[in-house]
Amino acid sequence: MTRSHTIHYRIAFSDCDPAQIVHFANYFRWFDTASREFFTACGVPGWRDTERKSGIIGTPVVDVQARFLASATYGEDIEIESTVERWGNKSFVMRHVARRGDTALVEGREVRVFAVRDPADPLRIKAVPIPEDIRAACS
Amino acid sequence: MTRSHTIHYRIAFSDCDPAQIVHFANYFRWFDTASREFFTACGVPGWRDTERKSGIIGTPVVDVQARFLASATYGEDIEIESTVERWGNKSFVMRHVARRGDTALVEGREVRVFAVRDPADPLRIKAVPIPEDIRAACS
Amino acid sequence: MTRSHTIHYRIAFSDCDPAQIVHFANYFRWFDTASREFFTACGVPGWRDTERKSGIIGTPVVDVQARFLASATYGEDIEIESTVERWGNKSFVMRHVARRGDTALVEGREVRVFAVRDPADPLRIKAVPIPEDIRAACS
Amino acid sequence: MTRSHTIHYRIAFSDCDPAQIVHFANYFRWFDTASREFFTACGVPGWRDTERKSGIIGTPVVDVQARFLASATYGEDIEIESTVERWGNKSFVMRHVARRGDTALVEGREVRVFAVRDPADPLRIKAVPIPEDIRAACS
Repeated sequence: MTRSHTIHYRIAFSDCDPAQIVHFANYFRWFDTASREFFTACGVPGWRDTERKSGIIGTPVVDVQARFLASATYGEDIEIESTVERWGNKSFVMRHVARRGDTALVEGREVRVFAVRDPADPLRIKAVPIPEDIRAACS
Repeated sequence: MTRSHTIHYRIAFSDCDPAQIVHFANYFRWFDTASREFFTACGVPGWRDTERKSGIIGTPVVDVQARFLASATYGEDIEIESTVERWGNKSFVMRHVARRGDTALVEGREVRVFAVRDPADPLRIKAVPIPEDIRAACS
Repeated sequence: MTRSHTIHYRIAFSDCDPAQIVHFANYFRWFDTASREFFTACGVPGWRDTERKSGIIGTPVVDVQARFLASATYGEDIEIESTVERWGNKSFVMRHVARRGDTALVEGREVRVFAVRDPADPLRIKAVPIPEDIRAACS
Repeated sequence: MTRSHTIHYRIAFSDCDPAQIVHFANYFRWFDTASREFFTACGVPGWRDTERKSGIIGTPVVDVQARFLASATYGEDIEIESTVERWGNKSFVMRHVARRGDTALVEGREVRVFAVRDPADPLRIKAVPIPEDIRAACS
């Protein structure tokens, strides 16, 4: 069985653009938040804690894709349902669906890796194998 | 020959997240700006003008994809080069490459449509065939 | 008795900057949302409805001030309590306090007006006297 | 003579809200960028460098105020002129004026401090006296 987690959000005026609808880039912010909340729901500690313990600073995206099916506007309540669609060795795929009631608004997929700071250049980051304990906690 | 347009941007502190790097969702905002600046460079009037003349309110995305190759941080100067990769009947594909010097940072593709307000519900939008004059101006 | 309304928010990773704390400009976005939610809690219809009925498109700020008392970071739950501190003839003052538990984080004040589109230039806006029914609903 | 620095920016579609004008919170992001660019123009190294040398991670705001005089919309070119209005012992006041041509749009004031990480809690920050070399470089 695949674990899923759902977050709820009321669209703000400042999320919308002059076309009166959510500016699409905001969905990527919300998917990012939904990804982290998925891990939180699985019991994975915050990235500040994991950085201290194992160096992991988060799960940066390496590839992102989204399909925009319907528009939404401010004052509307949406939810975003997130699952891990696939676990690889070094990367995993998160799938998000944003909905307003029964209407699917956006379907997104993120390929993410677990990252540590690059010892050669702390301003850059590099991928590490997916930690077994995190994968176990989220499956 | 394919037309291309390049915009320049210095990454701000507020564009970066606690991992010290640009939060990825910002690239989608910048690609959106780059798309509009492409049209401006081709001589296409602002969407406020097109709305008055033909009802067109802009080019909302219907599908977006990006590959993240290298991270960037604040104070760094980047450029985004944009081209129309393909013109369809109702949609077109914009391709963007964000670079810091010779380093490609992000490659993005947006499938966009030209949209007018939905007469049945002015809060929603609907696609129309690509205007011939705009296509000609941008080719 | 002064009416107040409180919204709740969990700080996202993308709300924070390389100093690991909420970038201060986000509080102004949240105060703006809190202002609108205050009106919603008082039963004031959305600005799309008011625009149709009376031309009012919202309550733009004319002066904003905030004092930053303590920092907050991602994963923390905050609340923002909003009240109208003063009603004038053409403007009113909203006061917001952002708190994490008992810790006050930010105190903000916004002077706002009710605005309609400027008939002389629909891209600009102009203030109108505060509608009596809205003031009554919120007092 | 007071030093000043000016940055230039073209307003993006995604900076504007459903009222078709710049959402006011964006000005605070831009003022923040303008503050950092002021220091860069004075020859002050990036905060990553100062953190290594003296622990200073930046100049967080402790009080911010802005007056909104005129609205602006996407496609318009603005400039923001920044000066240090006053140097105190522990804080300083930056003044910003955003203009479109000759039209003043927003006047802002930020009270800022120089901050280091709080040794007792690295997620919090604390103010330190203004470094003499930075003050000298910027005066």
